[in-house]
Amino acid sequence: MTTGRHAPGDLEIGPELVVRAIEGVPTIEPGDDLGDILGAALVRAEMGLADGDVVVVASKVVSRAEGCFVDLSAVDPTDTARALAKEVDKDPRLVELILRESRGISRKKQGALIVRHRLGFISANAGIDSSNAAPTHALPGSGPWVLTLPRDPDASARELRSRLERRFSASVGVVVTDSWGRPFRRGTVGFAIGVAGVPALWDRRGVTDRHGRRLEATESGVADSIAAAADLVAGQADEGRPFTLVRGLSFGLADDSADVLCRAPEDDLYA
Amino acid sequence: MTTGRHAPGDLEIGPELVVRAIEGVPTIEPGDDLGDILGAALVRAEMGLADGDVVVVASKVVSRAEGCFVDLSAVDPTDTARALAKEVDKDPRLVELILRESRGISRKKQGALIVRHRLGFISANAGIDSSNAAPTHALPGSGPWVLTLPRDPDASARELRSRLERRFSASVGVVVTDSWGRPFRRGTVGFAIGVAGVPALWDRRGVTDRHGRRLEATESGVADSIAAAADLVAGQADEGRPFTLVRGLSFGLADDSADVLCRAPEDDLYA
Repeated sequence: MTTGRHAPGDLEIGPELVVRAIEGVPTIEPGDDLGDILGAALVRAEMGLADGDVVVVASKVVSRAEGCFVDLSAVDPTDTARALAKEVDKDPRLVELILRESRGISRKKQGALIVRHRLGFISANAGIDSSNAAPTHALPGSGPWVLTLPRDPDASARELRSRLERRFSASVGVVVTDSWGRPFRRGTVGFAIGVAGVPALWDRRGVTDRHGRRLEATESGVADSIAAAADLVAGQADEGRPFTLVRGLSFGLADDSADVLCRAPEDDLYA
Repeated sequence: MTTGRHAPGDLEIGPELVVRAIEGVPTIEPGDDLGDILGAALVRAEMGLADGDVVVVASKVVSRAEGCFVDLSAVDPTDTARALAKEVDKDPRLVELILRESRGISRKKQGALIVRHRLGFISANAGIDSSNAAPTHALPGSGPWVLTLPRDPDASARELRSRLERRFSASVGVVVTDSWGRPFRRGTVGFAIGVAGVPALWDRRGVTDRHGRRLEATESGVADSIAAAADLVAGQADEGRPFTLVRGLSFGLADDSADVLCRAPEDDLYA
């Protein structure tokens, strides 16, 4: 619930969280209205939305709805991209696109280009998806098609949130997610790249334990944890579970953004 | 459920996961029997355990039960530890202990010592907890007390799993977790440091999407995602939710270990 007892950014998590796929969502195509489609799916599934619910959306469907398809055959790589592509053994047109979507290169090796995305986070290949990116309806162009991340996932989250709040008369949060590999750990997990309504970071500075001592870990990456939990259920968006409902949080509506989850390079020991 | 239709390591995740704190657990003290205490709490809460349930346990209570308390006043720092402590401005006795618990230093700066833990993962201060570590019952020693991670969290998970399976006649998984900060991201999330029964990594190499193309992300860090989901509900173990039940997975019993989640240094671009 989001009630008067919570200050903005406050968070309370009940003893039980339910993470439920919102099923029966069709393949999303460019121009689709995610608010309408998601609202209808929630009604069909007799789920609705209540105060404090968080809707988690795989970035892939946001990208598809926003038409973030790129026809690689129309991409003309610069000399820089061509040289880099040769070095890491990747398609020069894809490398060109990765560079356009990025602020800089973090690490590279054969087959791998880890970059700081224009949105601030570090990810492989700038989050560009080339595994299953073709739009179902014909777009002008011959392909192969790839799909970039949404232009402004925070804005997409805010827009979707406002649509859902109007439709269901409830105060809800929206988290847009992507799945990445990580330094030091094998396996992908979900991360938050767009946040609206729900706090992205849960700041517990000044909170004391039951012995009156200050807690050591003062900031919890709550939107990333929500993304990881939803990713368990969602799996690959391709398999048909791009929308997930997380129920059981209670928060003060926050003007938060996924941006606060990105550590500034000057504060990062691994930048 | 863990049924014959699943091969070892296979995983299926239903459309709904429930992540529920197992409440009413007392403060854990050295020598406590976690299997007994957890079993009794599950019975009291009328939750029980069913095939496919995963019990997530905060490493802190495993450490407390195993008596992993160290009296800092009894730690004699080497010259190496003293020099390093001066450099990063930390208690030399704590630095000595961090070095004993580690294979090597990954990064350091004022107040921060990021190491490769003897268990293989990278974490700050070797996961040693000095925020709330005092045993409630007197131990010989004057303190201050700190708490190291469990000696062998995979073994602790296996032992707890076998106790729970006998008591509840169900095939279950156990994940022992800790919360850490991460490169590039602000905020802590949960990670798996001990795994029994449930697959740690979900290997989907060879899986194809509905267009017949191979999935790009082939390994999912499923035990880390479970840990992150449980961490949302558990918060700080100090606050009384060290045990969490995750219900809604379906897996083939795996002889897995949290070890497989640690990327080998030679494969790591950030090592």
